[in-house]
Amino acid sequence: MQAVLIIIGDEILSGNTIDTNSNFMAAQLKEIGIPVKQILTVSDEVESIKSALKLGFEMGNLVISTGGLGPTNDDVTKKAFKEFFNDEIIFHQETYDHLERLFIKRKRTRLLDLNRSQAEVLSKAVIFQNDNGTAPGQMVSENGKTAIFLPGVPYEMKPLFSHKVIPWLMRNFQLGHLLTRVVSVVGIPESLLSDTIQQWESELPDHLSLSYLPIGNRIKLRISGSSDDRIQLENELEEQVQKLKPYITGHILSFNGNEIQDIVKEILLTKNLTISSAESCTGGGIARLLTSCSGSSGYFSGGIIAYDARKKIEILGVSENTIRQKTTVSQEIAQEMSLGCQKLFKTNIAVATTGVAGPSSDEFGNEVGMVFYSIRIDEKEYTLKLFLPHLDRNDFMNFVSQRVLQKLAELLVHPEKREE
Amino acid sequence: MQAVLIIIGDEILSGNTIDTNSNFMAAQLKEIGIPVKQILTVSDEVESIKSALKLGFEMGNLVISTGGLGPTNDDVTKKAFKEFFNDEIIFHQETYDHLERLFIKRKRTRLLDLNRSQAEVLSKAVIFQNDNGTAPGQMVSENGKTAIFLPGVPYEMKPLFSHKVIPWLMRNFQLGHLLTRVVSVVGIPESLLSDTIQQWESELPDHLSLSYLPIGNRIKLRISGSSDDRIQLENELEEQVQKLKPYITGHILSFNGNEIQDIVKEILLTKNLTISSAESCTGGGIARLLTSCSGSSGYFSGGIIAYDARKKIEILGVSENTIRQKTTVSQEIAQEMSLGCQKLFKTNIAVATTGVAGPSSDEFGNEVGMVFYSIRIDEKEYTLKLFLPHLDRNDFMNFVSQRVLQKLAELLVHPEKREE
Repeated sequence: MQAVLIIIGDEILSGNTIDTNSNFMAAQLKEIGIPVKQILTVSDEVESIKSALKLGFEMGNLVISTGGLGPTNDDVTKKAFKEFFNDEIIFHQETYDHLERLFIKRKRTRLLDLNRSQAEVLSKAVIFQNDNGTAPGQMVSENGKTAIFLPGVPYEMKPLFSHKVIPWLMRNFQLGHLLTRVVSVVGIPESLLSDTIQQWESELPDHLSLSYLPIGNRIKLRISGSSDDRIQLENELEEQVQKLKPYITGHILSFNGNEIQDIVKEILLTKNLTISSAESCTGGGIARLLTSCSGSSGYFSGGIIAYDARKKIEILGVSENTIRQKTTVSQEIAQEMSLGCQKLFKTNIAVATTGVAGPSSDEFGNEVGMVFYSIRIDEKEYTLKLFLPHLDRNDFMNFVSQRVLQKLAELLVHPEKREE
Repeated sequence: MQAVLIIIGDEILSGNTIDTNSNFMAAQLKEIGIPVKQILTVSDEVESIKSALKLGFEMGNLVISTGGLGPTNDDVTKKAFKEFFNDEIIFHQETYDHLERLFIKRKRTRLLDLNRSQAEVLSKAVIFQNDNGTAPGQMVSENGKTAIFLPGVPYEMKPLFSHKVIPWLMRNFQLGHLLTRVVSVVGIPESLLSDTIQQWESELPDHLSLSYLPIGNRIKLRISGSSDDRIQLENELEEQVQKLKPYITGHILSFNGNEIQDIVKEILLTKNLTISSAESCTGGGIARLLTSCSGSSGYFSGGIIAYDARKKIEILGVSENTIRQKTTVSQEIAQEMSLGCQKLFKTNIAVATTGVAGPSSDEFGNEVGMVFYSIRIDEKEYTLKLFLPHLDRNDFMNFVSQRVLQKLAELLVHPEKREE
C-alpha cells in the first residue's frame, strides 16, 4: 500500500500558514508500514482537488486529504470528492446527532443551517466522527482505491487521524513495516563523512537506503528499510549500525535521538544531571525545546528570559559594571548569566545566550546576528561566539537554541574534546 | 506568471522533517505578485523529480525546487534537471573559486572531490552563488519556462532566495500585485460569522476572494485580490474592510495582525503597556511567541519558566501552603504566579500558566490536558481554565500559549466584556 497526501488550502499556497498536517500523517503512516509517495498541496478549487485525486491514484492506492471542509463558501472539498466518485450527498442522522451533542457540550444553542450541512455526507462513505469540530472525516473505497478526507484544523485532524483513521487502516489492510535508524554525527563535514563511510555505504544491502540530513553542524545518517518481518528488519538495521560505528568513532553523538532535545534528554538522564537556562536573544527558545520532551521535569528545573538588561542584574546577578564596560552582548555577560542561572536554579548545568536577533543592531551598536553563549557544566565553563547575520529574526532564535543544545550534547558525550 | 514549487526530500515524505521552505518561498513570491498554484513534495528520485517538473510546467511557467543538492549519493536533483532540459554538466570555474573562498573562510583545508562536484553546473544555467553552503542555486529558462533549483537546507536556501532569486525575478519579469487584508474576529463561531456577514460576502466583487481561517477561537477573515495597480487594489481592499466593519462590531480583534503575537504587539505599543510571563506547562512558549516580534524588547521585560514547584516558591513567591492545599495545577497557583511575576518584572501585565502537558497525569493526580492560566492587567486579574485532553504534549503547549495571548488581546480590546 502506498499513500499520497493532498493538502488543501489557499492559506498554505499563499505562505500564510505552514502545513504541519502532512508531517503528522506521514510519520504515523510510516509507523504502520505505509510509505507516502508524494504530497500535493492544492488550492480550494473543485477542479484542482479532482486533478490531485486523479494524480494521487496514479501513484498510490490510498489518498488522504486534509482541509476545505468548513461550513463556509470557500470550502469545496466535499463537492470535489462527490464529483470524483460520482456519488451523491445524503443527510446523515448519526452525524447530525453527534453535532447536536457537541453543541450542547460547548453550550452553543443554535444549530444553524450551515452546521446542519456538516451532517451531509457522501452516500458511499464510512464516517469518522469528529469530537473536536463540526466536519466529520469520510472514507470512500472503490476498485482497490481508498480515499479519505479530513478537516484541516490540526487540533481536529490529529485526534481523528490517530484514533480513528490509523486503527481503521490497520484493521482493513495487511501492512508491512517501515523502519528507520538515525545515527547523529558531529564534528565532520558532510562531504568528508561521505568519504569516510564510503566503503560501508557501498556494502549496504540494496533493500536498505541511506540518507544524509545536515542540521546545524550535526548530520543525521538515516538508514531505512521495509519488510514484512519487523524483528528481522530491526536486527538488520542494528547490524548495519554496528558495522558503521568503527568508521566514525569520536564523531557519534547518539544512536537514538532524532531531535537534539531528545538526544540531550537521553544524555542528562543517563548521567543524572539537571539543567536550567538563562536566555536573552533566544527568548525562551531553549526552554521550549527542552520542555517539548515528555519527562523533562525530571532534569529541567526552569529558566529565565532576562530580556531587559535590568532583569539580568536583578534576577541573575549580572554586574552592572560589566554591562557598562562590555555591553550586554559580550562573552563576560554570557558567563555571568550562566553562573547566575546555575546558582538560582541549583542545577548541574546552566546555559545562557545573549545576542542581537535583529532586525537592527542594539543600542550599543552590536551587529545583528552576533551572539555569545555560555555553557556551565558543574565548575567548568565554555563560552562560544556565533555570527549569523544572514538569518532572519526567528531563524536566528531557532538556530541558536538548537546550536546551544547541540554544543552541550557534544561537550557531554565527548568530554575529551572540551579543551579544543 | 504562476509558480509551482517542488519540495524534494525523502525526510519530508517520511514525516521526519517539517517543510518550511515552501511557506517561506510562497510568502515572498506573493509579495512580488507571483501566486503559487501548487506545491509538489516528492522523493529523491530522478524519475519523481522529472515527473514533477513536467506536471509543474503544465500548471505554471515558473517552477522552483529545493533540496537534493548535497554532495552525497542520495542527492539527485541536478541529474534530474539535466535530463529534463536535455542539458549537460560542465565544470564552472567561478563556482569553484567561490567554494574555495568559502572553505578558507570556514578554515577547512581539504576541498574533496565531492565538494569539487558542487562546482559542476548545467551548461545552460544562470548560477546563484551560495554564501552559506556548497551547492549553488541554478536557473534554466527555455521556451517561456523558467526552472530554478535551490539547496534544501533552510539557512542556505532562504538568503539565496531573498537576496538573489527574488531580485532576479523582479528584474526579468513584469509582475502584478497580490494583496491580502486580514481581519481577526473573536467571540463568534465560524458558521454564525458566515451567517452574519452573508450579505457583505455576496456583494464582494468577483475579483476579490474571501476565506475563513479558524485558529483557536479566533477567525481570520482573509480578503485577497490581484491587480497591476497596487494603489487601486489597496483602496478596494480598504473599502471592503470598512463595509465589513458594521456587521461584526464588538467581535473585531485587529485589522492588521496576522499572528496573535503581532496583534498583541500592536495593542501593547498603542496602549503603552509592558508585559512579563511566568510559565509552567507552556515551558517558554509564551515568551518565545512574544519575542518572535522585532521590537519586542520595547514591551516584553522578561519571563520565568518555573518548571520545578520549588522555583515557583523561591522566585515567584508562590505560597508553599497553597501548593499543599490546592496542588500546583490550580486557580490559586496561577493567580499567585501572575502576581509574583508582575512584582518581579514590574510590568503592567503578567500572564501565568500551570497545567499538565502530559503524556501522563502529575504527581497530584491532575489529569493530562488540565490547565489554569492567569492574566493580570494592572490591579485586575482574570483566571481561566482549559481542559484539552485530546492534544499531544507539543500541540497542548502551543495551543495554550496562543490561547493566553489571544485572551489577553480580547481583554485589552474589549474591556467591556471583561466581566462576562
